[in-house]
Amino acid sequence: MGATMTGRFDVAADGLAVRRAIRNGLHRGPTAGLAPGYVQGNLAILPRALAADFLQFCRLNPKPCPLIGTSEPGDPRVPELGEDLDVRTDLPRYRVWRNGELVAEPTDIGALWRDDLVSFVIGCSFSFEEALTAEGIVLRHIARGCNVPMYRTSIATRPAGPFHGPMVVSMRPLTPRDAIRAVQITSRFPSVHGAPVHIGKPELIGIRDLSQPDYGDAVEVREDELPVFWACGVTPQAVIATAKPEFCITHYPGCMLVTDRKNTEFALL
Amino acid sequence: MGATMTGRFDVAADGLAVRRAIRNGLHRGPTAGLAPGYVQGNLAILPRALAADFLQFCRLNPKPCPLIGTSEPGDPRVPELGEDLDVRTDLPRYRVWRNGELVAEPTDIGALWRDDLVSFVIGCSFSFEEALTAEGIVLRHIARGCNVPMYRTSIATRPAGPFHGPMVVSMRPLTPRDAIRAVQITSRFPSVHGAPVHIGKPELIGIRDLSQPDYGDAVEVREDELPVFWACGVTPQAVIATAKPEFCITHYPGCMLVTDRKNTEFALL
Repeated sequence: MGATMTGRFDVAADGLAVRRAIRNGLHRGPTAGLAPGYVQGNLAILPRALAADFLQFCRLNPKPCPLIGTSEPGDPRVPELGEDLDVRTDLPRYRVWRNGELVAEPTDIGALWRDDLVSFVIGCSFSFEEALTAEGIVLRHIARGCNVPMYRTSIATRPAGPFHGPMVVSMRPLTPRDAIRAVQITSRFPSVHGAPVHIGKPELIGIRDLSQPDYGDAVEVREDELPVFWACGVTPQAVIATAKPEFCITHYPGCMLVTDRKNTEFALL
Repeated sequence: MGATMTGRFDVAADGLAVRRAIRNGLHRGPTAGLAPGYVQGNLAILPRALAADFLQFCRLNPKPCPLIGTSEPGDPRVPELGEDLDVRTDLPRYRVWRNGELVAEPTDIGALWRDDLVSFVIGCSFSFEEALTAEGIVLRHIARGCNVPMYRTSIATRPAGPFHGPMVVSMRPLTPRDAIRAVQITSRFPSVHGAPVHIGKPELIGIRDLSQPDYGDAVEVREDELPVFWACGVTPQAVIATAKPEFCITHYPGCMLVTDRKNTEFALL
């Protein structure tokens, strides 16, 4: 599945301009780096019959599932996250699931829309990574141009209805000094995963081999670094896959919903 | 040198009542646990000729030397820290140094007072330990009833005049989860050492063997714990010892100045 760039537009535009560019087919690739300063979100679209349980799941597991927006059933808009925002067209690419099986990866889901679909938008690590980078902390996966490594852990999420499963975490290697600063910086952003859930001892959270991530790409952890783990927005996707709903749509990995909300709005101070 | 309790008084009293009890000879031992909620401080009394350099040293090294109060030359009061506060009588015990040599450990320094002496009061870890304990974090040295282990590090302080030397740190073993919470909690108290300076890799800051502290008592670090290191108020004392001033008075270890200021006043939020 080639996620490629088509056409040209201003990557430094605001959230609305980026969504319109995507809607008009000008961008088909990952959204990392687009609309700097604007919140991007993970998307999960579920039938109304599952919405209450999924809402409860997010409420019970705010670190991996920080819900930043929801829609009315059947309404493709999420007004709290942006003007003229349409979840059917405004992400570069989607994944469509039926009974837990991945069945399509379209760039538009207008033809699949149903009156009972509810959208959930969950905060993503881009927000806190922007804050870390702004403070001069170098994140290796960004320096390497690869995906952040992610791992299934032995930390159970709190179940709700059919939704249950392990917490997925992302890992960033940092010097002890930067790890301390990263706790301080990311603690200011509880709505976008917040402080790390673990530092330093991967075996204590059920991770046997850092070089074998369950998602994303492995990165080196140097002798003078600690692996620092954050709750990851892949958790709800993994949980939805386990629940095998009859129908479900998620964003394609890395192809997020770009909103009109600013990252700074989500900082405590 | 037996630091023992004499007489009885209300340990839950306020700072002023505790100072008066000490002044009246009712308490000669460590001040840990006295006047809960009130800030206690490390004391250093130096001749005026060294005061400007020491003030500059504290300004340049705020993590190990968080200055919370100073006196006018020759004045034994520190009005910003307490009513009816007299540094000559209000600490349980003192150490007197001449040319870097420890020469006496009196319980009163009235007879040694000079018109050129300046007092410096430096925040102490009791303040942040109270905040950690209030959040349910168990500190092993407190559970064990021993002193916190302290280590000279390879982290240099920034020199000022004759004052220079390595940073001394205290170490508390914590689970990764509690270590993350401890960073959050202690970051709120920058005036009393603030966030840790290091986590997890003692060899990176020049500590070869955690079981051999340079000051205090060793405590166990379990397999599921990380050693967490804070800048320590012993640093200025070690630096003063290195500078060998012709005359100097400090508090006796553990016998701090109890102030009228509340720990909560020093919290950022």
